[in-house]
Amino acid sequence: MIEPERILRLESDRVVLLDQRRLPLEEVEMECFSAAEVADAIRTMVVRGAPAIGIAAAYGYALAAARGEVLGAADRVLRASRPTAVNLAWALDEMRDDPSYERARAIHADEVDRCRRMAAHAAELLAPGTRALTHCNAGGLATGGYGSAVGALVAAYEGGLLDHVWVDETRPLLQGARLTAWELEAAGIPHAVIADSAAASLMAAGTVDCVVTGADRVAANGDTANKIGTYALAVLARHHAIPFYVVAPTSTVDLSTATGSEIPIEERDPTEITDRFVARNPAFDVTPAALITAIVTERGVHGGPFTESLAGDVTRT
Amino acid sequence: MIEPERILRLESDRVVLLDQRRLPLEEVEMECFSAAEVADAIRTMVVRGAPAIGIAAAYGYALAAARGEVLGAADRVLRASRPTAVNLAWALDEMRDDPSYERARAIHADEVDRCRRMAAHAAELLAPGTRALTHCNAGGLATGGYGSAVGALVAAYEGGLLDHVWVDETRPLLQGARLTAWELEAAGIPHAVIADSAAASLMAAGTVDCVVTGADRVAANGDTANKIGTYALAVLARHHAIPFYVVAPTSTVDLSTATGSEIPIEERDPTEITDRFVARNPAFDVTPAALITAIVTERGVHGGPFTESLAGDVTRT
Repeated sequence: MIEPERILRLESDRVVLLDQRRLPLEEVEMECFSAAEVADAIRTMVVRGAPAIGIAAAYGYALAAARGEVLGAADRVLRASRPTAVNLAWALDEMRDDPSYERARAIHADEVDRCRRMAAHAAELLAPGTRALTHCNAGGLATGGYGSAVGALVAAYEGGLLDHVWVDETRPLLQGARLTAWELEAAGIPHAVIADSAAASLMAAGTVDCVVTGADRVAANGDTANKIGTYALAVLARHHAIPFYVVAPTSTVDLSTATGSEIPIEERDPTEITDRFVARNPAFDVTPAALITAIVTERGVHGGPFTESLAGDVTRT
Repeated sequence: MIEPERILRLESDRVVLLDQRRLPLEEVEMECFSAAEVADAIRTMVVRGAPAIGIAAAYGYALAAARGEVLGAADRVLRASRPTAVNLAWALDEMRDDPSYERARAIHADEVDRCRRMAAHAAELLAPGTRALTHCNAGGLATGGYGSAVGALVAAYEGGLLDHVWVDETRPLLQGARLTAWELEAAGIPHAVIADSAAASLMAAGTVDCVVTGADRVAANGDTANKIGTYALAVLARHHAIPFYVVAPTSTVDLSTATGSEIPIEERDPTEITDRFVARNPAFDVTPAALITAIVTERGVHGGPFTESLAGDVTRT
């Protein structure tokens, strides 16, 4: 497992981020000395993954407070750095009353702890010999440590339940091929990277027992925004009668968003796909609750319908 | 439209191929002086697309005959160069009794002519204002001129029926982003390249009216092998109640293959996906006939069930 402070940490005068754009070829850290620099790092995906960008925002806000920055401006620039994941707003709301380094570090520690609890719940859903398929990177890099979907796979592997992981390469930025494969390699879990478009024929061949992904925002009814391509996997899983699991902390559940249609979908630069031709580059899609077998938070497994049980999870103290 | 002889041609002592691996950045020709060199060019995808590799094989065989090569060996090396498309075997069977330059060139001219006829049939399926989605490259480059699926889109555009084309980039070799976008650009047809995994959310958003692809082999019952990812599109199209059309010449229909399960699926080098991690790289998948709305050959539109009508098409003289 990658140490949480290797992924991101707060030092006395700076936020230090492992530059995830350059993995796995090289491990380089980026240092941010203001809230605006942290926001830039989030926007350019130096750090990515819904929980991890929440933690980075908390660190950036604490740094701003220590530096005597105008906190309203720090909040705005961090909140606007990416639109889809709700964790940014959640973390900044959490920091408002206590913008201290201790509070920001506690948020980070809490997120890692949630992952361990989610992983234990999710592993219970898997039968021995499972061959799972995952998309993008919902690993330690995405959550500040341990991982949501990948954490569940690690826990299942340690519990003797997991045989193999199919890793969608995840175009256009290849988070699956670059980050998830790197994490699974480090954990010693058998896996193979595939073109995103190959998932369907692996399902048809009977070599996929379940799909496990993370989430960027879970609406109150269970509709789930996640990396573009997740929705396709959910439709394909349903067609092949394969369970589709979302593993996400309650910090990713947004009760103020009623359904997926209200979730803003980030449209990124088309040159991520091609700099030669016209392109469209939506970065996320929404999977309707009806296609999700279970949503696993750190508090347990929700089997659907999700509205009441998610609300119970999030508002429980 | 790209001139057929610019895509591939037979000269007195060589087969000349436009190197499709280097498009669209540069237009470079490769010259092959024996059947073995043509087979190598097919295997390494200098020329690709089921009808185009059939034409290349016919040219290679005619060249071998003119050079006095052992024709049994020439047949074997060409037939084995790629496994999935049936056009290789079809073209070599056609050449057996008359391995002349004239016969090979007639096969090429016939394939282009079939495309024009298919395109006219397929265009009749589209309503005005159609926003189509296509995968890989079933354009002039793939057929030796004009194109099957792309030919249909060109004909529809000329007939005022087509508004826009979504082009799957088509990982791992990006034939959509490199070749189809290049052809559509040349034809002046509005289009945008997308990550393969974005097709589902475009369908959910109501921005895709039909899916149109080519084929590498159509089994007797209509099951269709095509570029990996095609099957996923068919499942997704069905889920969204969108028609899914296959446009392919009768030279791609293989009555000796009863169903898709008998079609050999080429597994290509995993380094096409990544050279850093374990990968799997199936190059094709099979779409069951039940998910196909219509198969269009140069002889007309088959609405399914396909078995009798395809057999009638192929055996008709």
